[in-house]
Amino acid sequence: MARIALGLAYDGAPWLGWQTQPGGRTVQDQLEAALASFLVCKVDTICAGRTDTGVHAFEQVVHLDSPVERRMESWVRGLNALLPPSIRVQWACAVAEHFHARFSAQARSYFYLLRAHRVASPILHGKVGWTHYPLSLEPMREAACLLLGEHDFSAFRSSECQAASPVRRLDRLDIGQQGDFYIFRFRANAFLHHMVRNLMGALVEVGKGKYPPSWVGELLAARDRRKGPATFSPAGLYLARAEYPPEFALPSVPESASLLSHLGIPFPGPVAG
Amino acid sequence: MARIALGLAYDGAPWLGWQTQPGGRTVQDQLEAALASFLVCKVDTICAGRTDTGVHAFEQVVHLDSPVERRMESWVRGLNALLPPSIRVQWACAVAEHFHARFSAQARSYFYLLRAHRVASPILHGKVGWTHYPLSLEPMREAACLLLGEHDFSAFRSSECQAASPVRRLDRLDIGQQGDFYIFRFRANAFLHHMVRNLMGALVEVGKGKYPPSWVGELLAARDRRKGPATFSPAGLYLARAEYPPEFALPSVPESASLLSHLGIPFPGPVAG
Repeated sequence: MARIALGLAYDGAPWLGWQTQPGGRTVQDQLEAALASFLVCKVDTICAGRTDTGVHAFEQVVHLDSPVERRMESWVRGLNALLPPSIRVQWACAVAEHFHARFSAQARSYFYLLRAHRVASPILHGKVGWTHYPLSLEPMREAACLLLGEHDFSAFRSSECQAASPVRRLDRLDIGQQGDFYIFRFRANAFLHHMVRNLMGALVEVGKGKYPPSWVGELLAARDRRKGPATFSPAGLYLARAEYPPEFALPSVPESASLLSHLGIPFPGPVAG
Repeated sequence: MARIALGLAYDGAPWLGWQTQPGGRTVQDQLEAALASFLVCKVDTICAGRTDTGVHAFEQVVHLDSPVERRMESWVRGLNALLPPSIRVQWACAVAEHFHARFSAQARSYFYLLRAHRVASPILHGKVGWTHYPLSLEPMREAACLLLGEHDFSAFRSSECQAASPVRRLDRLDIGQQGDFYIFRFRANAFLHHMVRNLMGALVEVGKGKYPPSWVGELLAARDRRKGPATFSPAGLYLARAEYPPEFALPSVPESASLLSHLGIPFPGPVAG
């Protein structure tokens, strides 16, 4: 048995999220089917962050225990030959037996890509969120500051969230603008269910001028999801990165970095937590 | 009767190209169906450049004669409410009766977006061409220089091309690189059928080191399509712009410019022809 970590990128639009479901229309089902063909036996997979329906990943980290030995490049080529084109293994490496894609991760980053324009982008349909309202950057940035740090995020937590605690430490939330595109970068130790999309709903209301930045602080303090704004579209949401202790020596992120820079998104370096 | 020009952007992946076909799975069919609902009568459309199956457009210009008067913003909102999300009207304007989307156009620009990487991009699947070979930029640029100017492009013309003459004036072909993404920008008075994809096939062979740059000049001089390389994938090909005399006062290109800059592609200004 060898424990293997895989770095996966995917377009979430065609899939019902990460987690396995009857019917098989999920990223995990597609990956496990490819693994079953590649290894000629069934293996289970664990991921860093379970993405929802329509949510994308620049770098989802997955681990599994393989009874079969394969060269590392064979994992990449072999699985990619079996996967649909919307899912691609970017790298594979052998990891220590105590590596766990979910529990070893110290931080996750999500990006939200939003276009504020009277016309939605047809070319990036499903890959970028959209509002037809013009947005003001500074109020959104002010609101973002109120969210940083360790808080009870019950106000931004889906009623279906199964996490034991609603407390999370949000150590980065910055917002960039390029023309009518906005890029929201979130980094936390972990995220609650729908947390980024619910935060996006609130930030966009502030950007539209419907509420002042302080409203976001009030929502946070009230810890009541029913007072919050609607959950924002999954279209622009990307799981960008999962971070692990250096002892596991996972590959750094050249592919996703170049993809991000291609999308006009400067790739975030390590952030002091 | 009023002559109306529309600026259209579309994702070409779901469609069998621009031109109407039985079955209706083309951009023109989708647009004309939306127009028939919007105007409550059937109208014909003419475009600047008929794109092939899978080819995208940042700005396709279309004209039509409308028996019905509509506010310009209504054209945009009304048609977009009726079009599939992969096709969006960006602008509409009234034009002089002698404006013709095809015959008035003085130049067209196409962009080809290519990724040279061992793994294809799942997020930009269908929106970027791909080669798993590493490419050298300078030989491709040398080959590009040999193609500039007025030439008989028979070597790069599809056998199905219906143009009366194989002579075209290519006044721009520059190649940019950003990480493992390459951006090829073509501008000509007009293009032959499959001309950009056939030129891409040749440039990529040179970039891979299979042939020297001079080979492209030899292909051009031989005027024999059978000696040329395979037609490259439509996935990365974008109709970027059609240019008209200033007297027609078409809108400048803010949407496509911002979309392009978002994709990391500096938008080309007017080029001396």
